[in-house]
Amino acid sequence: MDDSGALRRQRGRPRDPEMEARVYSVVVLVFAEKGWAGFTLDEVARRSGVGKASVYLRWRDKRELLLAAMRDRLEPFRGWTHTGDLREDLKAMARYVFRMYWGWAGLAIMRLWLDARTYPDLFAELQNFYLFGSVKMVEDMVRSAAARGELPASTSPALVLGTLFGVATVQVSMAPPAPDEDVAYRTEVYVNQIVDMVLHGLRTADAGTAS
Amino acid sequence: MDDSGALRRQRGRPRDPEMEARVYSVVVLVFAEKGWAGFTLDEVARRSGVGKASVYLRWRDKRELLLAAMRDRLEPFRGWTHTGDLREDLKAMARYVFRMYWGWAGLAIMRLWLDARTYPDLFAELQNFYLFGSVKMVEDMVRSAAARGELPASTSPALVLGTLFGVATVQVSMAPPAPDEDVAYRTEVYVNQIVDMVLHGLRTADAGTAS
Repeated sequence: MDDSGALRRQRGRPRDPEMEARVYSVVVLVFAEKGWAGFTLDEVARRSGVGKASVYLRWRDKRELLLAAMRDRLEPFRGWTHTGDLREDLKAMARYVFRMYWGWAGLAIMRLWLDARTYPDLFAELQNFYLFGSVKMVEDMVRSAAARGELPASTSPALVLGTLFGVATVQVSMAPPAPDEDVAYRTEVYVNQIVDMVLHGLRTADAGTAS
Repeated sequence: MDDSGALRRQRGRPRDPEMEARVYSVVVLVFAEKGWAGFTLDEVARRSGVGKASVYLRWRDKRELLLAAMRDRLEPFRGWTHTGDLREDLKAMARYVFRMYWGWAGLAIMRLWLDARTYPDLFAELQNFYLFGSVKMVEDMVRSAAARGELPASTSPALVLGTLFGVATVQVSMAPPAPDEDVAYRTEVYVNQIVDMVLHGLRTADAGTAS
């Protein structure tokens, strides 16, 4: 890959990290509130106080701007490594997912997954920057726990990931608004319940399917 | 409750069940594609082939129309009773949730929960027609299983519900499009994995939290 594109961009219009950060924050807010159907570059320009011309010069269209903002703000588990303590690692992951989903960026990413079902060109991008990294991290964690004999070798990483992200999605979506300290307390209760269920469930599930 | 409202409506404009059914189907489609920010009565009228005037006479605004359609199409577990076989009941519930989420009505309801976070007057309605009935059903199921000694008395119905709905949400949202027979096969695999994990996890979780 040559870098003539990057050079062209640099020559034409020097990057302005402060402006980008401001725009990205507004993108996450507007998208969290309205999703793809209500998301416009005009509203982003207005609410970020950046001129429309600058926004249109820097990003080609709303798809490019949205994906740039999401990549910047929300690559889950970037730089994480598992510690080898399976229970603590799962709890840290679950806490991370809850914290993300209670906030604007989490609402934006939940919306983006639903939008990707009807706008398929968003789907491949989402897989690349969001899903594959998370799957890889959970696969490593499960494989290493299986090697230590803490989980059956047949454990499905997709089920672990689906449970951590899924229960958080449902609890956050269906919870009435509450003060921050209640949210923090409830999160810790949920995290412990989920991790207990997952660990006990996966360790004994291998024993057979008879109830 | 008197029925003068119903009488007034009947006199002014006789209900037309065939027209309503057609409009409700289109509401679910349009809302599934676009969510609240992109949902308009004009598009519903156009795509359903029903005159705009009729739509505006029958439903006051887009909120009333949306909620009427969702109530009509999607009261989960309406009329269900649990059989007393916990594993089979959980599998039937999980299958129902997956089937719902793979379809347009499921995408619409997932969107509606996210929209309810930024449009709070949608939230109370959603709780009433969607959440409370499901919670009640799972509570009955868990209580009855606990009475038979099949689950610890401390089992959290919210965790059971969150796991069934949550794993389905994540698996459906993050799955690439696939032929129907693949979807049916994968659903059955997921259903068995989830129910195994939930049953084993909840039965042993009570034993303590030491890993």
